[in-house]
Amino acid sequence: MPKIIDHDIRRLEIVEASWQVIASEGLEGLTMRKIAKVAGCTTGRLTHYFANREELVLAALHAAYDAAGDRMLQARAREGSALDRLLAMLEETLPLDEERVKEWKIWIGFWGVAMNDNPLAIENDARHTRWREALLPLLESINPALDATYEADRLIGIVDGLGLQAAIHPTPENLTRVREVLARQIAALGRS
Amino acid sequence: MPKIIDHDIRRLEIVEASWQVIASEGLEGLTMRKIAKVAGCTTGRLTHYFANREELVLAALHAAYDAAGDRMLQARAREGSALDRLLAMLEETLPLDEERVKEWKIWIGFWGVAMNDNPLAIENDARHTRWREALLPLLESINPALDATYEADRLIGIVDGLGLQAAIHPTPENLTRVREVLARQIAALGRS
Repeated sequence: MPKIIDHDIRRLEIVEASWQVIASEGLEGLTMRKIAKVAGCTTGRLTHYFANREELVLAALHAAYDAAGDRMLQARAREGSALDRLLAMLEETLPLDEERVKEWKIWIGFWGVAMNDNPLAIENDARHTRWREALLPLLESINPALDATYEADRLIGIVDGLGLQAAIHPTPENLTRVREVLARQIAALGRS
Repeated sequence: MPKIIDHDIRRLEIVEASWQVIASEGLEGLTMRKIAKVAGCTTGRLTHYFANREELVLAALHAAYDAAGDRMLQARAREGSALDRLLAMLEETLPLDEERVKEWKIWIGFWGVAMNDNPLAIENDARHTRWREALLPLLESINPALDATYEADRLIGIVDGLGLQAAIHPTPENLTRVREVLARQIAALGRS
């Protein structure tokens, strides 16, 4: 009987393995050999799923996007006021636990590559456009008179800017700062 | 007669050379060999000034901090209203020209390393603390009733977050976004 392997599961395991390497050594330390070691397979086996390191980096990035995107949409669909859901949605993207710190490390590594790689830079813009668009309906339901695009941009700025500092160094001080600034800015939207 | 070399100037030239390499290839592409080539010297000569790549990365980073910090302090000391000076000060840190895009590339590369290097992560916090403190006097002079720390954090979030996206891809759209959001948020401080 031939050995049955679920290719999608194997791909996912390899992506998970590369997340682990990125999280502990940064994108700089990501080699096919290290990923193969963590995934428990040969590098030859690895190239069966991903032709090269770049393909794997992109797959890891997309998996991080999808995971964060799914959590955000789930938070948006929950019960509660629009203000509460907006806060819950954005907190899903903050580096508040080990899993999300890992996602941030992938993003930071990705930005380091994207700044010198035009297709990746365009991809980064597209991701931010989708993110902005996902926030607009909630902002409009909080108050139709708001300039929803401006408010979305300010919130994204706080998440990306203060979230970045907290992801680099997830101290209680850095984590409290980004959560408090975000909560306060969202609360102010309800009084606008 | 012995050849006279100004060591400080030579050091600066080497730091400039590593900026150029980081700007075109990212921190990942920074090797002693490439820096030596751009600086027009041997790698042996290079190690006379910097023991290793890590020392050079730190020197490049400090030079970027210092350049941006000097411009910010100059902007703060200029004539004009506190609101105008605050805007001018923060615009000095945005990736609005080639020089500042280069500084951003060094920071982005640095963040990629700092997330897995505790002393560098602490250094990043210290830099942000100094930055926040440099903004407080202006914010307090705009309106003593403001929560200056909160306002400084929000402004830093916008600069780091939206500035980052603009640095990765300095399109007119991304540059206009960060400038407009920043200008609008500062203008609102004057009406608070």
